[in-house]
Amino acid sequence: MSDTIYDIAIIGGGPAGLSAALTGRIRNKKILLFEHLGFSEKLQKGHTINNYLGIPAVSGQELMKQFADHVLSYSPELVKEKVVNIFPGDGMFTILTSKSTYEAKAVIIATGVVATGLFEGEKDLLGRGVSYCATCDGMLYRDQDVAVISYTREGEHEAEYLAEICRQVYYLPQYKSEFSAMRSNLAIKTVRPRALSNEANAISLATDKENINVGGVFILRQSDPVENLLPGIELEGEVIKVNRDMATSIPGVFAAGDCTGKPWQISRATGEGLVAVLSAISYLDSQAKAAGA
Amino acid sequence: MSDTIYDIAIIGGGPAGLSAALTGRIRNKKILLFEHLGFSEKLQKGHTINNYLGIPAVSGQELMKQFADHVLSYSPELVKEKVVNIFPGDGMFTILTSKSTYEAKAVIIATGVVATGLFEGEKDLLGRGVSYCATCDGMLYRDQDVAVISYTREGEHEAEYLAEICRQVYYLPQYKSEFSAMRSNLAIKTVRPRALSNEANAISLATDKENINVGGVFILRQSDPVENLLPGIELEGEVIKVNRDMATSIPGVFAAGDCTGKPWQISRATGEGLVAVLSAISYLDSQAKAAGA
Repeated sequence: MSDTIYDIAIIGGGPAGLSAALTGRIRNKKILLFEHLGFSEKLQKGHTINNYLGIPAVSGQELMKQFADHVLSYSPELVKEKVVNIFPGDGMFTILTSKSTYEAKAVIIATGVVATGLFEGEKDLLGRGVSYCATCDGMLYRDQDVAVISYTREGEHEAEYLAEICRQVYYLPQYKSEFSAMRSNLAIKTVRPRALSNEANAISLATDKENINVGGVFILRQSDPVENLLPGIELEGEVIKVNRDMATSIPGVFAAGDCTGKPWQISRATGEGLVAVLSAISYLDSQAKAAGA
Repeated sequence: MSDTIYDIAIIGGGPAGLSAALTGRIRNKKILLFEHLGFSEKLQKGHTINNYLGIPAVSGQELMKQFADHVLSYSPELVKEKVVNIFPGDGMFTILTSKSTYEAKAVIIATGVVATGLFEGEKDLLGRGVSYCATCDGMLYRDQDVAVISYTREGEHEAEYLAEICRQVYYLPQYKSEFSAMRSNLAIKTVRPRALSNEANAISLATDKENINVGGVFILRQSDPVENLLPGIELEGEVIKVNRDMATSIPGVFAAGDCTGKPWQISRATGEGLVAVLSAISYLDSQAKAAGA
């Protein structure tokens, strides 16, 4: 656990999160920036971006590099860990990653496109056989069989960790994978999951090819469903509900970019990130005044 | 009057208007871009801009040049005339400048920081002795005395025009002016206006130094009060009220950037311009469908 109390924790290092971090640092705030995937894989896959004003015809990879270089020159505290949960406390948020915990006075959620199309049964079984974090919950399934549905390459490490403690691990990559497992108890299955159900104290995972019966299922997406990250946050459909100041329903929590809805566009995200961080700074000022009064 | 019917008229060529024009052209729409002041004088006066993500430490002038070059390479129809009025019609807007009229199916207002602090009496006397457009209303004051309160250098030309038709013109520059008038009936007064009142069918203009009595007063700001540009548009305080899609209270009219409120920041403006033009395009699509149905 870090001893520092940060002013603002920014969850996600895509265009929205980076824009927030940039202006936050310029305004001299202690900024904690969580980015566990090397800065917006989605944007980096973009071929040519023509409509980011001032930088014509640039590849997604090059633009993302320019963005990251610009922000990192202002030295935010960069943490390459996935945020698993955010707990609101008394004027303070505790942020739990797969490895550690951090504290910040305000939070900006900039986690990108919201996971839609949860699997049938997923929501009901969350915490009762379904988990989004191997490091957090792996030990609950010690010596049992588990399945790992992963949308990112990062999931390969989590599967290998699970193979150390579980009896049998089925790894279901939902991306173009070249993963070959070293351990004999880690099997790769190229199947598409369909639904999850609870049968006789075990989870039955239906896929397009076979049913897999396990004690637990880990689902590893680029970003988890928002209501899981921060329970109680108000949604509008599937995205985070914000006002024009990018404030969410929870005081001290702001959101920006694709996680607040469409259009999914770079300059909308950078603009919202900027507004979110200025709103967060106003919030900090008002909290400081209230504490001093 | 132009014969072309444009898809979208964008009023203002600062960051918001340029961002809207860029994505509008990329989406292959006929874009009419009104910019009468050489692209955001306000931004061009900025010393160093550090927080436009991806372009570190740039002068306002250089950044505005990069913005304008980027957009102009996509050839929007650039009109260097000040928009005086927008008239909503049947699925069509008529846009009146000081020189001509234009037609467009949708409008994006991106006129920058809204004029605040109108002079006492200004609102009441608008159209009854107070005007925002010399070219439009000059002839009403033929052979009379008039005053011109101007916040831009452009006002010097309007004052000279008025001196051709009026008896006496008092020019009150509210900027650092080096203007020296050629005509003997054009007098420059470095005073600060305070209030306007109607006295015996003439306008009495109170200033910090003297009272000036004239038949009419022209007030030339970088942008006019919004409710004058498009009567009936709903405001929120002094700025244009918009929703998260940047739609205003008038169908087919969108707004973006500083005219929708604070924070006055470049990337907020570019993001809003982008959202506004995508919303305008959706509006055009829905209108086309309704017409086809």
